[in-house]
Amino acid sequence: MSAVRLALAQTNPVVGDISGNLDACFLEVKNAEAAGAQLVVFGEMVATGYPIEDLASKPSFVASVEEAISEFAKRLETNGLGHLFVVIGHPALAQGERELNFWALSQNLASVIHDGRVIATYAKHHLPNYSVFDEYRNFVPGETLTTFEAGGLKFALAICEDIWQAGGPVSEIAANGVDVTLVLNGSPFETGKRNTRIELIADLAKKQRTAVCYTNLVGGQDDLVFDGDSLVVDATGTQVARAKRFESDLLVVDIENKNEISGRQEQSSESELEEIWNALVLGLRDYAVKNSFRSVVLGLSGGIDSAVCAALAVDALGKDAVFGVKMPSAYSSEHSISDADDLASRLGINIRSAPIESAFDLFESELGLDGLAAENIQARIRGLILMAISNAENHLTLTTGNKTELSVGYSTIYGDSVGGFAPIKDVKKTLVWELARWRNEKAESQSQVSPIPENSISKPPSAELRPGQVDQDSLPEYDILDDILDQYIQRMLGRDEIIASGYATDLVDRIITLVDRAEWKRRQGAIGTKISGMAFGRDRRLPITNKSSARRN
Amino acid sequence: MSAVRLALAQTNPVVGDISGNLDACFLEVKNAEAAGAQLVVFGEMVATGYPIEDLASKPSFVASVEEAISEFAKRLETNGLGHLFVVIGHPALAQGERELNFWALSQNLASVIHDGRVIATYAKHHLPNYSVFDEYRNFVPGETLTTFEAGGLKFALAICEDIWQAGGPVSEIAANGVDVTLVLNGSPFETGKRNTRIELIADLAKKQRTAVCYTNLVGGQDDLVFDGDSLVVDATGTQVARAKRFESDLLVVDIENKNEISGRQEQSSESELEEIWNALVLGLRDYAVKNSFRSVVLGLSGGIDSAVCAALAVDALGKDAVFGVKMPSAYSSEHSISDADDLASRLGINIRSAPIESAFDLFESELGLDGLAAENIQARIRGLILMAISNAENHLTLTTGNKTELSVGYSTIYGDSVGGFAPIKDVKKTLVWELARWRNEKAESQSQVSPIPENSISKPPSAELRPGQVDQDSLPEYDILDDILDQYIQRMLGRDEIIASGYATDLVDRIITLVDRAEWKRRQGAIGTKISGMAFGRDRRLPITNKSSARRN
Repeated sequence: MSAVRLALAQTNPVVGDISGNLDACFLEVKNAEAAGAQLVVFGEMVATGYPIEDLASKPSFVASVEEAISEFAKRLETNGLGHLFVVIGHPALAQGERELNFWALSQNLASVIHDGRVIATYAKHHLPNYSVFDEYRNFVPGETLTTFEAGGLKFALAICEDIWQAGGPVSEIAANGVDVTLVLNGSPFETGKRNTRIELIADLAKKQRTAVCYTNLVGGQDDLVFDGDSLVVDATGTQVARAKRFESDLLVVDIENKNEISGRQEQSSESELEEIWNALVLGLRDYAVKNSFRSVVLGLSGGIDSAVCAALAVDALGKDAVFGVKMPSAYSSEHSISDADDLASRLGINIRSAPIESAFDLFESELGLDGLAAENIQARIRGLILMAISNAENHLTLTTGNKTELSVGYSTIYGDSVGGFAPIKDVKKTLVWELARWRNEKAESQSQVSPIPENSISKPPSAELRPGQVDQDSLPEYDILDDILDQYIQRMLGRDEIIASGYATDLVDRIITLVDRAEWKRRQGAIGTKISGMAFGRDRRLPITNKSSARRN
Repeated sequence: MSAVRLALAQTNPVVGDISGNLDACFLEVKNAEAAGAQLVVFGEMVATGYPIEDLASKPSFVASVEEAISEFAKRLETNGLGHLFVVIGHPALAQGERELNFWALSQNLASVIHDGRVIATYAKHHLPNYSVFDEYRNFVPGETLTTFEAGGLKFALAICEDIWQAGGPVSEIAANGVDVTLVLNGSPFETGKRNTRIELIADLAKKQRTAVCYTNLVGGQDDLVFDGDSLVVDATGTQVARAKRFESDLLVVDIENKNEISGRQEQSSESELEEIWNALVLGLRDYAVKNSFRSVVLGLSGGIDSAVCAALAVDALGKDAVFGVKMPSAYSSEHSISDADDLASRLGINIRSAPIESAFDLFESELGLDGLAAENIQARIRGLILMAISNAENHLTLTTGNKTELSVGYSTIYGDSVGGFAPIKDVKKTLVWELARWRNEKAESQSQVSPIPENSISKPPSAELRPGQVDQDSLPEYDILDDILDQYIQRMLGRDEIIASGYATDLVDRIITLVDRAEWKRRQGAIGTKISGMAFGRDRRLPITNKSSARRN
């Protein structure tokens, strides 16, 4: 009888930090060895972080990774870890002809390290080139299945997209009599994706008659959050072990044979709101930490968006790292100030006041403007103040716009849009409210102070740029707006299809025209965590100069 | 003997404006018929404009194009133009299986219209998925050569990238006994690309023993400029006709056989500086016009960048459409004001003054800041003023940053970076000076007033954000800086390679760290015309969170 103890190392690499990432991998191999493992499997491209985008087309970068992998193999051996089989993801320069795509010069690899050297290598075959991914741009596909033996079992390798598409080397696993397939992943979070992923893994196991060890990365990288959730299924497709979600983990399993595997099962059955909240927290935390920010600054308007962003920031970085700024104007309501104070006191964050009235009066008298131009000046004075505080105190500025607002351009560019990170960029307004209620309920269920003032949730939303203004002066009710936007943006439906779903023609025309006209603003917007199937940014690529909605297409 | 009169219709479509584009095509077919042509060839995707990016993945949009093409064919026939052969580029939904790439749902087609219907169709085979292009994301490749006969000659079809890469249907042209290959193109301008393009066309002619009619689009679309320059070579590879560059044109040629073709030869042998200038003018003009702006506003600092942008804007839109704003501070030199006035008077543009001193004093006293934070406040007050004027008077705001400055982050985000379009975004500082000198010399050679004040060209560049500041306080000389940046950005060389080229280690480390750290700012920057082989934007895709330079890779 064979028996292998295998560790799935779910780590959080930083893009470009080859030495730091491999140091972390080295520690995990030591931990795995201490836990008695003979085989360790890391995530996709763990040596460089993921995705590295056009760094994959930079020869010196890829060459330095290859060198670092060789050194890593020697280091393992020098430190008495050479007997382990270590499966690690990294890029390497492609060999031979590259007919299909002359721009791509490297491959996305899984290498098996043993006895101080690489004994087997697999190159990713299916290269995702949709949604946020550009892998066909950057990589040359591999064509052949790679297997190796360890502890009397036969292992095969696969990388992420390989199990999401039909055909390719993965389809030859059963014919090769493989016991266990090791899948290295950089699979980002998306609402509702988790179940699809689990089904795919079980399908692979059943169809190819193989156990599957699925190791995912964890952590935030720009707009993506890798949610971890690594898992093992046996050859019947039954889940036999599962790692933590949204945090680093080392999941150790004992494999007797492909049908007899035992390991730890993390309980993780978050509600949809909880998993979204956790993704947003991790995305914000890692953007700040990986870019060397220890604190954030944001404007507190008393409204729901800034309240949710502040609560996320506290969950991500702690209350002492969050700096709120009230910036009242002559049009600010009493509650805009009292709700902001209430929020700060509930969260225990720093708060200060920087009134904009005198600056606004000065600009108004010097420039003599009114209407939209004057409204925008208020938002831009606030942006200037936030950036000044950020510059002086070295905080990351958070911009608090939600997806609905970004969709229709209901924000002032260089005003409330200023900032390096947009925590709720991909969260539509109706979901912002749901998240706020969920977070408060969670606090209450734990006998903690609910972080978000009830009044910020229940009052009518307003930009307060003129007396008595509310959002619904110029926009339909948010449930209607979000549904139209969902059809137009997420589902990519056309004007006639949306009208056919039951909305008035002029309403639909007005909304889709707003969306298309705001493209230039979105193009200049901060990045923020993707949680939906169609986030703004590299997920949805449309021209700025674009008459399609104006021409009713 | 056969003889066909053929017209290459070099037109300027607007992305998404299907009806407007096809109306323009209809007029060109009429013009071609009036000129006696039997066959008309348009550019790639002329019906929708190009590139349409993810509009190609929107079923309702693509379906409406297909419908519009059918109607266009009928309209030609109804108007007595059905006897012509009209070759037109457009997308259509792909038929059948799409194994390779499930995201792509359409094809990039060339359709031959005759007698009121489409009689032949070719689908682009080679899909560029590098540089600014994402065609593998959006299109399904075609696999077969399409030929048709007209006027006793045999024609083949090809689309743009098909002639830039080896293999594919184009390689079967000679074997099919083709007389003339019609190539539909959306080939954007890049400095030095023109000769490569001409060589490729001549190579195709010689290798496949075919005459080649190469029709390019013309005009600006966001960051791309299509330079026209359509041309015809006979089967020996000899150029026999050539259209205008940087403007619409209808080039009519008479084809006796593949070796006997005659037509108009536009003289067009611009210097490199002249072609760059023309590309920048067209890119700026079309961005403004296609987005319904009649005028632009920009800050005039007395420096070279704003002077060149103002001169470009005058060449693009006329002097009455250009609004300059002086925004002097306490640190502004005497010449910053006098040089701006001199520029405005040379160009004949509108100019006004909006001093920032009182606003700056107010913010400084309220916020109590100094150093970088205070410097940035000045730039942000200027940004606020420009945007206020833009909002009030409906001008497109131009941001005047050059490529060198964007590379190293030597600008204030939400300050001097505000604007919808960045005319010299892809022009490095040393080239800005060359363009200024070239433009002045051109004016002098035509006995006109040289537009750019000599003092703006010759004085040491300064942001004037503190007393006596010049750029070289914090940056190396621009010729050195531009060379290092060229190695790091354009040529994608690594740190060690740049050091090996002869620069000091600490200088190289400092510069490449500046470049990587400024990625978040560039991501929020305005678009601007691409003129180089590696422009910022979708041409160069790198993560914001990226430790590769910090780790010296």
